[in-house]
Amino acid sequence: MEDLTHFDEEGRARMVDVSDKAETARVAVAQGKILMKPETLERIRSGLIAKGDVLGVAQVAGIMAAKQTSQLIPMCHPLAITGAKLSFKFVEPGEIDIEASVKVHGKTGVEMEALTAVSVAALTIYDMCKAIDKSMMIKDIYLAEKIGGKSGHYIHG
Amino acid sequence: MEDLTHFDEEGRARMVDVSDKAETARVAVAQGKILMKPETLERIRSGLIAKGDVLGVAQVAGIMAAKQTSQLIPMCHPLAITGAKLSFKFVEPGEIDIEASVKVHGKTGVEMEALTAVSVAALTIYDMCKAIDKSMMIKDIYLAEKIGGKSGHYIHG
Amino acid sequence: MEDLTHFDEEGRARMVDVSDKAETARVAVAQGKILMKPETLERIRSGLIAKGDVLGVAQVAGIMAAKQTSQLIPMCHPLAITGAKLSFKFVEPGEIDIEASVKVHGKTGVEMEALTAVSVAALTIYDMCKAIDKSMMIKDIYLAEKIGGKSGHYIHG
Amino acid sequence: MEDLTHFDEEGRARMVDVSDKAETARVAVAQGKILMKPETLERIRSGLIAKGDVLGVAQVAGIMAAKQTSQLIPMCHPLAITGAKLSFKFVEPGEIDIEASVKVHGKTGVEMEALTAVSVAALTIYDMCKAIDKSMMIKDIYLAEKIGGKSGHYIHG
Amino acid sequence: MEDLTHFDEEGRARMVDVSDKAETARVAVAQGKILMKPETLERIRSGLIAKGDVLGVAQVAGIMAAKQTSQLIPMCHPLAITGAKLSFKFVEPGEIDIEASVKVHGKTGVEMEALTAVSVAALTIYDMCKAIDKSMMIKDIYLAEKIGGKSGHYIHG
Amino acid sequence: MEDLTHFDEEGRARMVDVSDKAETARVAVAQGKILMKPETLERIRSGLIAKGDVLGVAQVAGIMAAKQTSQLIPMCHPLAITGAKLSFKFVEPGEIDIEASVKVHGKTGVEMEALTAVSVAALTIYDMCKAIDKSMMIKDIYLAEKIGGKSGHYIHG
Repeated sequence: MEDLTHFDEEGRARMVDVSDKAETARVAVAQGKILMKPETLERIRSGLIAKGDVLGVAQVAGIMAAKQTSQLIPMCHPLAITGAKLSFKFVEPGEIDIEASVKVHGKTGVEMEALTAVSVAALTIYDMCKAIDKSMMIKDIYLAEKIGGKSGHYIHG
Repeated sequence: MEDLTHFDEEGRARMVDVSDKAETARVAVAQGKILMKPETLERIRSGLIAKGDVLGVAQVAGIMAAKQTSQLIPMCHPLAITGAKLSFKFVEPGEIDIEASVKVHGKTGVEMEALTAVSVAALTIYDMCKAIDKSMMIKDIYLAEKIGGKSGHYIHG
Repeated sequence: MEDLTHFDEEGRARMVDVSDKAETARVAVAQGKILMKPETLERIRSGLIAKGDVLGVAQVAGIMAAKQTSQLIPMCHPLAITGAKLSFKFVEPGEIDIEASVKVHGKTGVEMEALTAVSVAALTIYDMCKAIDKSMMIKDIYLAEKIGGKSGHYIHG
Repeated sequence: MEDLTHFDEEGRARMVDVSDKAETARVAVAQGKILMKPETLERIRSGLIAKGDVLGVAQVAGIMAAKQTSQLIPMCHPLAITGAKLSFKFVEPGEIDIEASVKVHGKTGVEMEALTAVSVAALTIYDMCKAIDKSMMIKDIYLAEKIGGKSGHYIHG
Repeated sequence: MEDLTHFDEEGRARMVDVSDKAETARVAVAQGKILMKPETLERIRSGLIAKGDVLGVAQVAGIMAAKQTSQLIPMCHPLAITGAKLSFKFVEPGEIDIEASVKVHGKTGVEMEALTAVSVAALTIYDMCKAIDKSMMIKDIYLAEKIGGKSGHYIHG
Repeated sequence: MEDLTHFDEEGRARMVDVSDKAETARVAVAQGKILMKPETLERIRSGLIAKGDVLGVAQVAGIMAAKQTSQLIPMCHPLAITGAKLSFKFVEPGEIDIEASVKVHGKTGVEMEALTAVSVAALTIYDMCKAIDKSMMIKDIYLAEKIGGKSGHYIHG
């Protein structure tokens, strides 16, 4: 291959090679919230949203999104997660807190899976309520805790 | 079908029937941001993140996510979007602002597509920088503007 | 291209060309059921299945599956469906009936979307209860009704 | 987080944590059938269906569906299956029997993968023949056999 | 938003806005080929490949890939294609020619759908025969013809 | 099951059973190229293509495609790849060479993942430049090298 110019390997993207990392038990917990009008919260709580049971649908959406993470985040490694759960808390007067916890036995962590689960759960809440409240805001999505892997135990803050 | 109990149509989820809505030109603009350490911002800006060109990858991820929205958000209608773009702004000392704009000619709007694009772009930034900064926080994702459809022109705030 | 043998167009698969068909309003309704032990039905009804709210999850799964139909069924045309809903009925002592209704304004019908929604909802019920009842059986999935398109109004039976 | 109400962990959905289960060799076999008019069966057998080679396409569809199972069934764990095959039997005068066998070395079984493969193969047969026979009925999809895992060897019936 | 640097809209990627383009009938035809050892061709032709009916599977794979094009090619618009077919020709002594034809009624063309169908069909042939012939080579994939849209009738030449 | 005809297991497709193969470290390297007009190459190099940074987008597309391989290639086993990278070389006057390298620790190799990454990267280049050069041709996609597995070290040619 004569007459060519090298173009690659200067700041361009790759999926980092984790082939030689050990498989260990890993857990990641992510949190986030969505703010809304108090009457929107009240209608979610009392099951009066036309599209259906908001948090039930958001929970399924978040868990399914955790499984699709590596197809959404380009440089994220595919992982066969071994557990995922989401929980929600109503915070008066107009906030729902979301927490996702994901587990895997693998070479890389599941931070992105947990963060993606929270994000998609929040987006689903937005979708189901937007007919009555377009001003909802998704806030403060972050990694709350991470266990396992070379970098050890991480707790936010 | 004797001897049965009705279980459905009380608060359960459905994809709202939009069959009779008119197809109109629609635009949605969503915004959000991700906070990080100043040195993380500096490394993104100077192209020193090991996984590659952070904003370039995030931009592709956001646009591809806009196209997958109806597969992530359970009650969201599938739409053949006609345009999507994302832009980023560095805000000193440690913030990147993200804006996504999506268009369609259809029976429902593209709010969810724009919000999903911003969310996945932010998650991609997190993924590419998490080796050096696990404390990044995704904040303030909201619908900034919406044009078209029965509800007319909406501007946040 | 000399010296070749024609191999194609004898019974092989194609996605039938519907380019010249008119776009019309279409509805399809599919039905099916899943048989189980009476105690399994009782536990679903009383919310005692460890994996969660069985019919709530099955409903979301069925609606999302309707949107993925053309990616599962090889020769099925992609369609932007405009509405989808599922309902369930408990039939004593050990049967749940499932009905899915899907709408579109398009060149082909949504029979496959409705049948896929019922099938995936039934599979989801199986998945969520299989720890306590592996002998469940999915039965009698069929097209109950179809409106629109050249072939007109079809009612099963 | 003051002033809040707990909403979660009462009957809502989770992907069950299998992190601590041993990886073992697992096999699942599922069966099902589709009933049709005798002339439909005859046309499938003689390769006279306009959309193409019905069982050849159904076989590919079933195998590909087995690989997508965890994206269809919300609480189903992702698994890297190590083998999948489908077979069909013509049963006179108007029935095709479908059997799928799936293998994995993993922490959970592949029942859902085998059942999904059968279901999607049956749906594909429906799709390819529906132009001539809308009254086809998918019947009796069940887990025929399961090997491996804590619950041991299961044979239906 | 003070104190910031503009980073976007200089050569970065966007999905081009086609909102104002007219919907017209469009066709694209793509061609390609795969070279192999003569004995590999002979085994495909005589149905002696262990993984199965090579061209039958490649045909299904190509058609399904056409439907997934916008999820593979980042800046490609999603389109509800209205028809897709693939054909194959054996060229002695060791070549298979592949042709895909795709149709849509839409705002953008289906060149990428046709090219993707040919590419994935060729990759599938490689996959099914690689146990006996790793040296196969995919060659000369190009757009043979394009009808419809503002740029009019294009024939490769 | 009386009165039936065996139809299966004669040349039909299956996903080959690799359950009993050992998990080993595997690498595959694939190469390919795309030919274009010299002025197209020049515009890519100077960043003047309207759709954006062509090789940056192609690189992301190739890596994401590697992760979707088993959903595109019907008989291909799903694999959790542990690394993937693509590089490009400008070859004057009108050629871009593409190389993909993929790694996994698994029971089967990643040849298809590397070949798919190259193919989708080439298709993405085509997509982003087709407005100015429809005559581009994708050529010579092949497996350059393969390490690991029972068949040992393979080098093309």
